Amino acid sequence: MLIPKEVKFFDLFDKQAENLVLSADFYKKIIDEGAFTPENVRAMHEKEHYGDELTHTVINTLNETFITPFDREDIMALANHMDDILDAMYMITNRFALYKITNPSEPSKKLADILARATKSLQKAINTLRNKKSMKETLMQCVEINRLENEADVVRDEAISSLFEKEKDPIAIIKHKELYEEAENAVDFCEHTAAVIESILVKNN
Amino acid sequence: MLIPKEVKFFDLFDKQAENLVLSADFYKKIIDEGAFTPENVRAMHEKEHYGDELTHTVINTLNETFITPFDREDIMALANHMDDILDAMYMITNRFALYKITNPSEPSKKLADILARATKSLQKAINTLRNKKSMKETLMQCVEINRLENEADVVRDEAISSLFEKEKDPIAIIKHKELYEEAENAVDFCEHTAAVIESILVKNN
Amino acid sequence: MLIPKEVKFFDLFDKQAENLVLSADFYKKIIDEGAFTPENVRAMHEKEHYGDELTHTVINTLNETFITPFDREDIMALANHMDDILDAMYMITNRFALYKITNPSEPSKKLADILARATKSLQKAINTLRNKKSMKETLMQCVEINRLENEADVVRDEAISSLFEKEKDPIAIIKHKELYEEAENAVDFCEHTAAVIESILVKNN
Repeated sequence: MLIPKEVKFFDLFDKQAENLVLSADFYKKIIDEGAFTPENVRAMHEKEHYGDELTHTVINTLNETFITPFDREDIMALANHMDDILDAMYMITNRFALYKITNPSEPSKKLADILARATKSLQKAINTLRNKKSMKETLMQCVEINRLENEADVVRDEAISSLFEKEKDPIAIIKHKELYEEAENAVDFCEHTAAVIESILVKNN
Repeated sequence: MLIPKEVKFFDLFDKQAENLVLSADFYKKIIDEGAFTPENVRAMHEKEHYGDELTHTVINTLNETFITPFDREDIMALANHMDDILDAMYMITNRFALYKITNPSEPSKKLADILARATKSLQKAINTLRNKKSMKETLMQCVEINRLENEADVVRDEAISSLFEKEKDPIAIIKHKELYEEAENAVDFCEHTAAVIESILVKNN
Repeated sequence: MLIPKEVKFFDLFDKQAENLVLSADFYKKIIDEGAFTPENVRAMHEKEHYGDELTHTVINTLNETFITPFDREDIMALANHMDDILDAMYMITNRFALYKITNPSEPSKKLADILARATKSLQKAINTLRNKKSMKETLMQCVEINRLENEADVVRDEAISSLFEKEKDPIAIIKHKELYEEAENAVDFCEHTAAVIESILVKNN
């Protein structure tokens, strides 16, 4: 059923999704351990850089291809939104290091865990996207990502509420408020990716 | 002149615009009263959720429709920008509650009033969009939205300037600075919607 | 080789690029001198306003034109991203004034210098875009913009790190953190513009 170029896009998206899952697991690990060492920040930067390369490859392949498995703008959006997730992970890791935080708070750990789970659902959605028969499975993963995004919203809101209630040091508030918001943003980007997948399913049904 | 599918899009946009106006009036009311109670935050969340559903319906209708009253990307942009306005209103309401602010400042009230007026102009622009004969009226409303956005810029700048001059508590500065900026953002989203409308008018003239 | 309408787009982009370079030089000058006087802020606002007009002209020309030198969405993206750079410059100038800063820090000066250099590379890339024979030169400028964006990242990270280490006044941290981030954002917008140019080159090769 599929022509080679189509396979190419699906293979590239699978690679992006795999890189996302590996990066999110690593990200969760260093947040759990508070290990924002120069080596770990560099390793995260490399993962983000590899993601950039994959995104570039998708866009270049798109520019050289006439027939695509689904709309060109959806291919662009998928590649770019997955890239946004990785950029956010690197940005947050880097800020933890800049802020010299060595004991991330419980909400920060929870948000990293939610993100890791969201990327795993995203990977399943992406992996099943090439097979119309798995459409139900693909959709189920998108629903799960939406659920996780709501979960992240609640965690961030409670974390910010408690931060302003208990923390008296304004500099600590500046740091943690930003880290909570950026962590929730990363999960938002997963939801944006899921929205593109859902729209692809509707169009190609 | 119009085919049913076209009517459908205009009807959906009218509904989105009506939901925006009702939400902005409610938003202005609870800011005027400083009434960020759990009930009011929940009511605002429901309005935002209803807006999400309308946006989804627009996108699904678009995916099922071959002939559209204007460019597909403009339909998407209209639906998404109107959604952004509502998201911003809910986000701000929620932050007022998280920050336990019960007496919003004068600039916050002014910005809510500007937003309520901008959504009313937006509704008129949207309502008249289905009738080419009302083009002048549609344009006039877009001009008014641009004027209101400039007004919001001035209010936000003066508010931030005065905040840094008079407020000595850095935590209060963090809260109010964010609330002013997000409130101005909400008006910016009205301007983005107006820009799409203007572009639709130019293309279909 | 070129038809008049194509010339028109290239001429408009050249004008946008020229306005960017002039604005960035002025921006760098007032940051170097710490001269955020009402006159200078107003002059910067006028440059931003002129940029808005040019962006509008591009979009209106696009709406009236059937045959374009390259993809419509790339023309839109070029015009809008260049506009984003100018908006950022005005926003930062205005914030310096609101915050009553008269002696910008060294990193702020460095970031303004990087931005001025990035806009000069951008102008060269834009100027050479109308001539396929200069493709190598165009690409080289895009590479340089990417390099400058990385440089800006490093300057911002070091500036924020040092700010949180040395500055004890949370209000000063709020101000400078924002100014560093927005200044880096402005360079990011140059990179976004360069990415569109690179994509145009790939497609039209």
